[in-house]
Amino acid sequence: MKFVIQKDKLVQSVQDVMKAVSSRTTIPILTGIKIVATEEGITLTGSDSDISIESFIPVEEDGKQYAEIFQTGSIVLQARFFSEIVKKLPKDQVEIEVNNYSLTVIRSGSAEFNLNGLDAEEYPRLPEIEEQNVFKISTDLLKAMIRQTVFAVSTSETRPILTGVNWRLENGELTSIATDSHRLALRKAKVETDTNDSYNVVIPGKSLNELSKILDDNDELVEIVITENQILFKTKNLLFFSRLLDGNYPDTSRLIPTESKTDLIVNTKEFLQAIDRASLLAREGRNNVVKFAIVGENSVEISSNSPEIGKVVEEIETKEIQGEELKISFSAKYMMDALKALEGQEIRISFTGAMRPFLIRIPDDDTILQLILPVRTY
Amino acid sequence: MKFVIQKDKLVQSVQDVMKAVSSRTTIPILTGIKIVATEEGITLTGSDSDISIESFIPVEEDGKQYAEIFQTGSIVLQARFFSEIVKKLPKDQVEIEVNNYSLTVIRSGSAEFNLNGLDAEEYPRLPEIEEQNVFKISTDLLKAMIRQTVFAVSTSETRPILTGVNWRLENGELTSIATDSHRLALRKAKVETDTNDSYNVVIPGKSLNELSKILDDNDELVEIVITENQILFKTKNLLFFSRLLDGNYPDTSRLIPTESKTDLIVNTKEFLQAIDRASLLAREGRNNVVKFAIVGENSVEISSNSPEIGKVVEEIETKEIQGEELKISFSAKYMMDALKALEGQEIRISFTGAMRPFLIRIPDDDTILQLILPVRTY
Repeated sequence: MKFVIQKDKLVQSVQDVMKAVSSRTTIPILTGIKIVATEEGITLTGSDSDISIESFIPVEEDGKQYAEIFQTGSIVLQARFFSEIVKKLPKDQVEIEVNNYSLTVIRSGSAEFNLNGLDAEEYPRLPEIEEQNVFKISTDLLKAMIRQTVFAVSTSETRPILTGVNWRLENGELTSIATDSHRLALRKAKVETDTNDSYNVVIPGKSLNELSKILDDNDELVEIVITENQILFKTKNLLFFSRLLDGNYPDTSRLIPTESKTDLIVNTKEFLQAIDRASLLAREGRNNVVKFAIVGENSVEISSNSPEIGKVVEEIETKEIQGEELKISFSAKYMMDALKALEGQEIRISFTGAMRPFLIRIPDDDTILQLILPVRTY
Repeated sequence: MKFVIQKDKLVQSVQDVMKAVSSRTTIPILTGIKIVATEEGITLTGSDSDISIESFIPVEEDGKQYAEIFQTGSIVLQARFFSEIVKKLPKDQVEIEVNNYSLTVIRSGSAEFNLNGLDAEEYPRLPEIEEQNVFKISTDLLKAMIRQTVFAVSTSETRPILTGVNWRLENGELTSIATDSHRLALRKAKVETDTNDSYNVVIPGKSLNELSKILDDNDELVEIVITENQILFKTKNLLFFSRLLDGNYPDTSRLIPTESKTDLIVNTKEFLQAIDRASLLAREGRNNVVKFAIVGENSVEISSNSPEIGKVVEEIETKEIQGEELKISFSAKYMMDALKALEGQEIRISFTGAMRPFLIRIPDDDTILQLILPVRTY
């Protein structure tokens, strides 16, 4: 194998596939990055066996030349060293050549590195996924769906299925749901699809977080293929594979109240900042809990109390309040997570009593909702 | 005590004095910030008993009003809570009022915090320092002197005196020296002084690091007062006290070679980057050691070798080489630290043999030098 490549392109690709490489793997070759040079270009692969990422650098694209292949071939190089080396090379061009015995020479300017490589044949093969039943979604919308739900997955392995995000595809609509059993986040969106098949899968939260980091902010379409135990995300030069979680995701639809007894609308930013302030003195007390009470025709009071340190109280004006009076307590952290995910200027909160889960939504937008279970304190 | 103050000013002052507050102190009241309101303004104090910082916010300065005092007084508030609270207050103005029983009310907009305070009389008094024998140095120069020497202090407590920086003032010239016994950094500068007294003190490296963070980048003069066991740095609204280290600093002048056998000049940035690259494969081996050899009339070779991973070799052009041929090995980290501290475009390296300490300087500048002890490998 021998090729010359633009350093910038190589650095970017290495950085992308590194997101799948773990130093704590039990399979030694997975601490490496696989490099394959064909006539068409160079493919880099990283994997921790849960997530696999493949990045392709074409010899030429849109009239620009990125690489020149002198001899096709393949090698696996230690990811940690290879990624640091390419970042620090002195010139804009890099030559990579594999000699006999897997010895790899990396040249740039007057710097020459010799790295001991591993046989690429030893590297595990990525799953072969048939590209039927593809659906498509814009990158921006995909990233928003991830951001607005994935924070609510469980971090505990008590119920492993809850560490994933449930994706349901039905009638051309994708519903993404995450819950840790104390709160729930849901986002729906239309997707482009030719199939009438419906899917119901659970994707590890970690996979979606890594995918989100790797995708640029743009409106290009991402192709998504679901198989029995894998999901594949495809962009122009990137393949992102994740395993799916085994097991049935709980039916969350019955959790979500369909009617409410108290409804109010507040400014998102003002409300978020008041919760944030109240949480300063809640952290030391019961699990970061703040109190919320309706105190007039158009104002609510947020307070918290930490006997040793002190207390805080603040009134917020609401746009409208309908229904019964209410006192309720909830986790400041869950509320702040939910408010940050909603991203609207105003939010509507719908309560059905101090002991029942309540909903936070954007007024007149039924594609997104956040649900929180209250804490018993009053 | 009752006053109203500009939030920005308060946040800045709290941030400054927080640099002296440690959560791991054995004196409980030192986890607090002392607040004193007089007719002239508000003074905040933080201390971990090694470092004490006092920040003053005048009622009025340069025609701008920063505070209004309704009642003088004092209180100590939990630093961690107080600093987070003031940062997150909703409005540009803050009212602070101490009621009976040290209960302190902090109001801003509709937010109201009640914090349990402590009696300011319990707070340890700062050392009283007579303001004789002051010398002055511009803030920029002081920060440069710190940056160019403090990194070389010892991090080990085996010889506590070496965890400090030695300051010698003689004939209006201040010499700052730090060494961990493997390398040494020295910087000299003229200072403004009315006294002919000479000083020889050792300031904890940590104190100088914190001082450097707290000082703005400007050319205003800092007043420095040295007593038997304290040093005080004074700027317009800030007092920074540090204890001095006990004991005699070793005489380092005999360590510094006065003649050389090999002299060369290289471009600092090129040399630094080549060392950085070579260190990538040195980290795994013997204590981050790289090899350096003169390989021609105007080039040197930098290399390193990590049997399991691979090796790297690179040639660098020099501007001039005088004297004997040489092969030597040294710590890449020490060399990079020294090169970063020198800040010149070109550097001169002067060797007196492969087993002797060598000097790195800026050509024609004798106010700064870096010394490194080689490692025996050839």
